[in-house]
Amino acid sequence: MTASTLGVNPTRLLERIVSLGACGALPDGGVSRLALTDADAQGRAELLRQMRELDMEIRIDPIGNIFGIHAGVEDAVVMMGSHIDTVSTGGLYDGALGVIAGLEVVACLKDEGIRPRHPVVVAAFTNEEGARYAPDMLGSLVYSGAMDVDDAYRITGCDGSVLGEELRRIGHCGTQSGPRNIHAYVELHIEQGPVLEDQGLNIGIVTGVQGISWTEVTVEGRSAHAGTTPARLRHDAGLAAAYITMGLSDMVAAMGPAQLATVGALTLTPNLVNVVASRAVMTVDLRNPDNTALCAAEAMLAKLMGEAKARYGVNVSHRTLARFEPVPFTPALVDTIEATACQMGLSCMRLYSGAGHDAQMIAPVAPAAMIFVPSVAGISHNIREYTHPDDIMNGANLLLRVVTDQAGLA
Amino acid sequence: MTASTLGVNPTRLLERIVSLGACGALPDGGVSRLALTDADAQGRAELLRQMRELDMEIRIDPIGNIFGIHAGVEDAVVMMGSHIDTVSTGGLYDGALGVIAGLEVVACLKDEGIRPRHPVVVAAFTNEEGARYAPDMLGSLVYSGAMDVDDAYRITGCDGSVLGEELRRIGHCGTQSGPRNIHAYVELHIEQGPVLEDQGLNIGIVTGVQGISWTEVTVEGRSAHAGTTPARLRHDAGLAAAYITMGLSDMVAAMGPAQLATVGALTLTPNLVNVVASRAVMTVDLRNPDNTALCAAEAMLAKLMGEAKARYGVNVSHRTLARFEPVPFTPALVDTIEATACQMGLSCMRLYSGAGHDAQMIAPVAPAAMIFVPSVAGISHNIREYTHPDDIMNGANLLLRVVTDQAGLA
Repeated sequence: MTASTLGVNPTRLLERIVSLGACGALPDGGVSRLALTDADAQGRAELLRQMRELDMEIRIDPIGNIFGIHAGVEDAVVMMGSHIDTVSTGGLYDGALGVIAGLEVVACLKDEGIRPRHPVVVAAFTNEEGARYAPDMLGSLVYSGAMDVDDAYRITGCDGSVLGEELRRIGHCGTQSGPRNIHAYVELHIEQGPVLEDQGLNIGIVTGVQGISWTEVTVEGRSAHAGTTPARLRHDAGLAAAYITMGLSDMVAAMGPAQLATVGALTLTPNLVNVVASRAVMTVDLRNPDNTALCAAEAMLAKLMGEAKARYGVNVSHRTLARFEPVPFTPALVDTIEATACQMGLSCMRLYSGAGHDAQMIAPVAPAAMIFVPSVAGISHNIREYTHPDDIMNGANLLLRVVTDQAGLA
Repeated sequence: MTASTLGVNPTRLLERIVSLGACGALPDGGVSRLALTDADAQGRAELLRQMRELDMEIRIDPIGNIFGIHAGVEDAVVMMGSHIDTVSTGGLYDGALGVIAGLEVVACLKDEGIRPRHPVVVAAFTNEEGARYAPDMLGSLVYSGAMDVDDAYRITGCDGSVLGEELRRIGHCGTQSGPRNIHAYVELHIEQGPVLEDQGLNIGIVTGVQGISWTEVTVEGRSAHAGTTPARLRHDAGLAAAYITMGLSDMVAAMGPAQLATVGALTLTPNLVNVVASRAVMTVDLRNPDNTALCAAEAMLAKLMGEAKARYGVNVSHRTLARFEPVPFTPALVDTIEATACQMGLSCMRLYSGAGHDAQMIAPVAPAAMIFVPSVAGISHNIREYTHPDDIMNGANLLLRVVTDQAGLA
C-alpha cells in the first residue's frame, strides 16, 4: 500500500462528523456550539474520545487548544487542524470537517500500518469563530505567540462571561504545550462561499486569507418623543447608524467585489416605537485581500462616522474588535497541494479565502496552506450549511495524500 | 371666594407629584411604570389613596381605567384626566401631571367648600403610552367605545405578557362603568416638545392632536457568512432596514416639518458581527396633523418597502400597530380655555399636539380640549423630563379656573 492508493473510509468519516454534530445539536438541524459553552465542552469530550480511540497522545494547552499526536520519529510534525466551535446557529461542517478529516487520516495510517517519519498531529483551536469572544481565531493566535494567554483570559464575551473563567469552568485550561516545530500545516475546510459550486469544481487551492477589520461603532444621540420633536432638533442615534450602514454599502459598490462590508449586529436604546433612539451600537466587518484597499475601506468608515456626527448631531466613538492583515500561504506547499489534486484527477482552482481561518495564524510561524471543498449555495454560519459527501471524500482524500507525502515514512 | 380668586396649593401639588413619582422610581431619577406592571400597580394604589383622602367616589372599569368622582347634582360630569403609566425610562410629569392636578383641583374645591353643579371627575386611563401594549391610548379607546374590551384583553405585550392576564394579576380589572355623560373633558399635560420654551410662553392652547400611524416592518433575508458572500449574492435584512430608515428621513426632508418619521426600534437576527442578518424587525412611527399628508407618508413607506424588496432580494411584510386620524378638539371649549388664560394674564399660543393623548379618544364622544405647559428642552419620555414648578402652577390654576367655570355651582 502506497500513499497513492490510500483512501479514507466514507462511512466512518461521516459517522465521526455526525457524532460531533450531536453535541450542541439544534432542534431544526445545525448546531450551536459557541466557544467554551457546555455544548462546546460536549464537543471537546467527543473529540477526545475519538482521539483516545486512535491511541493518540493528547495535549491541551493553556488556551484550551487540543492536540492529538500520532507518533513519528522526528521532532517536526505535520499538523492538520481547524476548530470545533460554531456560531450560535451554525452547521455541521465549518471547522469540524478539518478536525474530523484529520482523525480519519490518522485512522487510515493506522489501518494500513503506515509509520510516519514526522509525527502526524490533529489540532482543534479554541474560539475560532469569535462569535462569543473577540477576536476570532483566538486559540491559534495565542498558539502562534501573537497574543499573550493572560490577555486572552481577561476577554469579556458578548454574554458578559470572562474567557478564562469559562475555560476553567469546562476544565480545558490545560498545562501542556502544543508541538512547537511544524514541518507543514494543512487545513481542510468548507469554502463557506458560492464560488466552487458556481464553477462546478471539486477543490479550492487556497492561496491566502483576505484581511479582516472588525470595528464596534457606538453612536450617542439623545432620546426624544417621536411625536413632538421636529427632525431638525433630533439627535437620532438609529438614523446615524442607518446612514453609516448605507454609506458602507455604497462604498462596496464603488470599490468592487473584492471589498466586503457587513453590519451584522445593531442594538438600539431604548428600542421603543415612539422614542427616538439615544444610542446605537453596531459592528462593522470589513474584508479585502489587499491590505491597502482594506485600509482605504477603514478610512471610509472613519469618514462616514465623521459625517454621521456632523449630520445628526451625535457623538460617534469606535473600538477595534479585531484586525488581521491579508495572509499569503506558503507558495511551495500551495503548489504541492495543487499538483497532488491534479494527479488525483480532481478539478480545482486557486482562490483567496473570504473568511478568517486558523491557518492564517500558523502561516507566519510555519509552512501552511488550506484546501477548500464546495458549500451548497455558499451557505455557512447557518443551520442549512451543507457539503455533499462526495465533496467531503474528495477533500479528505486530498488531505490524506498531502499529509502522507509530507510526513514521509519512518 | 369665587373662581377668579381660587388657587392651587403649590406645596401640596408638588408633594402629590413626588408621591406618585416614587412608584417605579429609577435609581438615576425618572420612573419606569410600564402599564400593568408591579410599578404601575404601586402607582395606582397611590392614586387611590389620594382619591380616598379627598372622599372621592372611586370606580374602576373593566379595562382598568380609574375614575374618582367629586359629587355634583347633575348627571353630566366635568372630567379632568390623563394617565399614570410611563415608558420604560420616563419622567415624573408625562400623564401624571394631568391626573395629579385634577386631584389638586378637587382639593381646592373642598378647601373652599365649593359644591359643583356638575360632578367633577378625575380619570386615569390605562396604557396610554403603548410602550408595553399596542395600541397606545388603549384605556381611553375602550372607554370611548371604539375598541371592544375583550379584544383588548387578548393583546400580547412586547414582553410576551397578555394584557387581560396582567390586568387581573394586579387586581385592576374592574366591574364598574366610568361616567358616561361628559359635559366637558379638559386634560392638562406637559408639551413634550420644545415649542413653548422656545417661544417663552406659559401655556399652549391645544387645538387638536396630529394623526399617528405605527407600522411594524419585518424584513426576511438570508443569513450568510460576512467574509465569503459577495454583495451581489446577499439578501441582507439589516441593509434593507437601513435603506427604509434613510428613505423615511429623506421623505421628512421633502415633506417639511409637519411630517415626522421615527424608526425607534430595530432588532436584527442573528445579530452577530460576522453574519449577514437574516431578519430585521423595525417599527415606523409616522405623524402629521393633516390626514391626507399622513396617508401620503404611509404610501411612501409602502413604496420604500417595495424598493427594499427589489433592491436587496428580501421579503418585506408589515402590520399596523396603531392608526389614529388627526383629531380636532371642540372649538368652543378651546376658545373658552384661551379666553380664561388671557384673563389670568398667562401668555399663550395655539398649537397642535405632536403626541397622542387620551383627550383625542374622548373628543369624538364629548366636548374635549387640552392645556399644555412647557417642557424644559422639549425632553420627554426620558428621565431628564422636567417642567418648572411655576409652569406647573400656571397650568394647574388654569385647569382649576376652567373646570370650576364648566362645573358651575350647585
